[in-house]
Amino acid sequence: MMIKNKKWILKERPIGLVKDSDFELVNEELPAINEGEILIENIYLSFDPTQRSWLNDVPGYLPPVQIDEVVRSGGIGRVIDSKNPDYKTGDLTFGLVGWQTHCLTKPSVEDRFRVIPDLLPMPTMLNVMGSTGITAYYGLVELGKPKSGETVLVSGAAGATGSVVVQIAKLKGCHVIGIAGGKEKCDWLKSIGADDVIDYKNYDVHKELPKVAKNGIDIYFDNVGGEILETVLELININARVLLCGGISSGYNSTRPADGPNNLFSLIIKRATMQGFLVLDYLPNSEKALEEIATWVLEGKLQHREDIQEGIENCPQTLNRLFTGENKGKQLLKI
Amino acid sequence: MMIKNKKWILKERPIGLVKDSDFELVNEELPAINEGEILIENIYLSFDPTQRSWLNDVPGYLPPVQIDEVVRSGGIGRVIDSKNPDYKTGDLTFGLVGWQTHCLTKPSVEDRFRVIPDLLPMPTMLNVMGSTGITAYYGLVELGKPKSGETVLVSGAAGATGSVVVQIAKLKGCHVIGIAGGKEKCDWLKSIGADDVIDYKNYDVHKELPKVAKNGIDIYFDNVGGEILETVLELININARVLLCGGISSGYNSTRPADGPNNLFSLIIKRATMQGFLVLDYLPNSEKALEEIATWVLEGKLQHREDIQEGIENCPQTLNRLFTGENKGKQLLKI
Repeated sequence: MMIKNKKWILKERPIGLVKDSDFELVNEELPAINEGEILIENIYLSFDPTQRSWLNDVPGYLPPVQIDEVVRSGGIGRVIDSKNPDYKTGDLTFGLVGWQTHCLTKPSVEDRFRVIPDLLPMPTMLNVMGSTGITAYYGLVELGKPKSGETVLVSGAAGATGSVVVQIAKLKGCHVIGIAGGKEKCDWLKSIGADDVIDYKNYDVHKELPKVAKNGIDIYFDNVGGEILETVLELININARVLLCGGISSGYNSTRPADGPNNLFSLIIKRATMQGFLVLDYLPNSEKALEEIATWVLEGKLQHREDIQEGIENCPQTLNRLFTGENKGKQLLKI
Repeated sequence: MMIKNKKWILKERPIGLVKDSDFELVNEELPAINEGEILIENIYLSFDPTQRSWLNDVPGYLPPVQIDEVVRSGGIGRVIDSKNPDYKTGDLTFGLVGWQTHCLTKPSVEDRFRVIPDLLPMPTMLNVMGSTGITAYYGLVELGKPKSGETVLVSGAAGATGSVVVQIAKLKGCHVIGIAGGKEKCDWLKSIGADDVIDYKNYDVHKELPKVAKNGIDIYFDNVGGEILETVLELININARVLLCGGISSGYNSTRPADGPNNLFSLIIKRATMQGFLVLDYLPNSEKALEEIATWVLEGKLQHREDIQEGIENCPQTLNRLFTGENKGKQLLKI
């Protein structure tokens, strides 16, 4: 059978938000499948802030996407042909499928393709039951080690990862403060259990945070980077843990990053730890996380929402939604 | 017996380097000793960068020295009278004796007075065998967990703490790079085992560091804070550990701290940890450190040097030596 593939390839390195013209939507006929390969029909693409960093020509934890290469992204697809004994036609698979309608690949450690159970809705599998949920669990539970009664602050709290962090922190008995942009997101955060919320688009976080963090801050789960960190460092308690999960506000898009916090000294006074992490390192050991998350989801204790755009032609603009804050929940695209 | 005490009290909060006129040297006659108190004749005062921060009216890990209070500092003295069963006349004691010739005090947990063995020279006891050596050991060994073959970078490397860190890192089999100011200090660092040195007064650290840190940086023991950190964050390896021990360049003296590193994002990419610490937290468990340090000192494996000023009237200018870089080794003052 002859398969037509539509794929977005990188043409120019974007500056700031991406433009459609940074890419090209290419039609191609896929070659015949070779020994060891699988052919996947992609169904959902996952959009995560880190994907933007892969488009920069900067060495990172993965090599930059090269010019004329398919744009890298995670996603779920159905195996429609296989010459690999580990995959059979009909399998649902998760991996780095890329911005394209089909993925013909010889699965490798780097692609991280794995067959997933066909039980829960796919958007859920890509959200709380996928690397988003595992990221939240790994950072907060494994690294942050929250204790009941502690105060947990979450930035980007209405985002895919942030909203899971908020809810797990509540399940662990913490007082939770969420920072998000806009009334709708803040109201939603309240509805899923956040004790306090700060709408950074309408209020000054520097002024509001001391009012709600009356007992200081024990854990800061930072999804955004940037200037909020400086304010947080003024409020941390002894033995505080700052978990750096992302830097939407500064690290992915900008060409000249903002200055960092001028009060790192506070980490000494408060014997505090600031730790960066990548979910990649934890994926091989994520059974415990997935088990606990699955239990919470099935018991209705973990709310989640997905923002589902449609159509392969909308990939670039869908990526931008993460940085403009338009997305409500986990950003996906249904092909 | 009537004892005359000379003491420096704080009169005005200093800005930047201290001036004699920020203090007043007061003569007083001490009252009779009361039940529970001890009278110490101070012999050596210890000068540490953190003492400068105690003079600022900023909440820290210890309360600020109040106006008209004796300036707080560690030191060694001989007990010359005691109405406390835990101390007897003739005991050598270490604690927060203050900038004064005599210290009449009821020992408390806060003062941390402890009787020390009268075996090694007092300057050694205040240096490698005192909180300086314990700081180096706690930060590098207990928190940094250096592995043989790793690269350890030390700023303020010719300072009291830094030079001990350099030598312990060598004893642990690491490749050690030291940053210090001036040829004399750099030559000395080489002589005590540093593999590479950078003289920040005559060379551009940002340019030199990548040349010597060819295998990246696994541990950065930061004694100075400030802009070197930004350069280091560009060179850290996966799972690097940044240990914040002090911030001479920014945190103690200045009224408006410098901007922080704009690349904290690197902590995420490299899954690295930045940790602030205070030796205070470790002192109750420092037997292991002192045992290992004592062994190294007695075996001649741990070089140390002390910069000994003289005369109680020189306290303020002796403190400044730490920040001008004039001191060569642990800064002490003999009364």
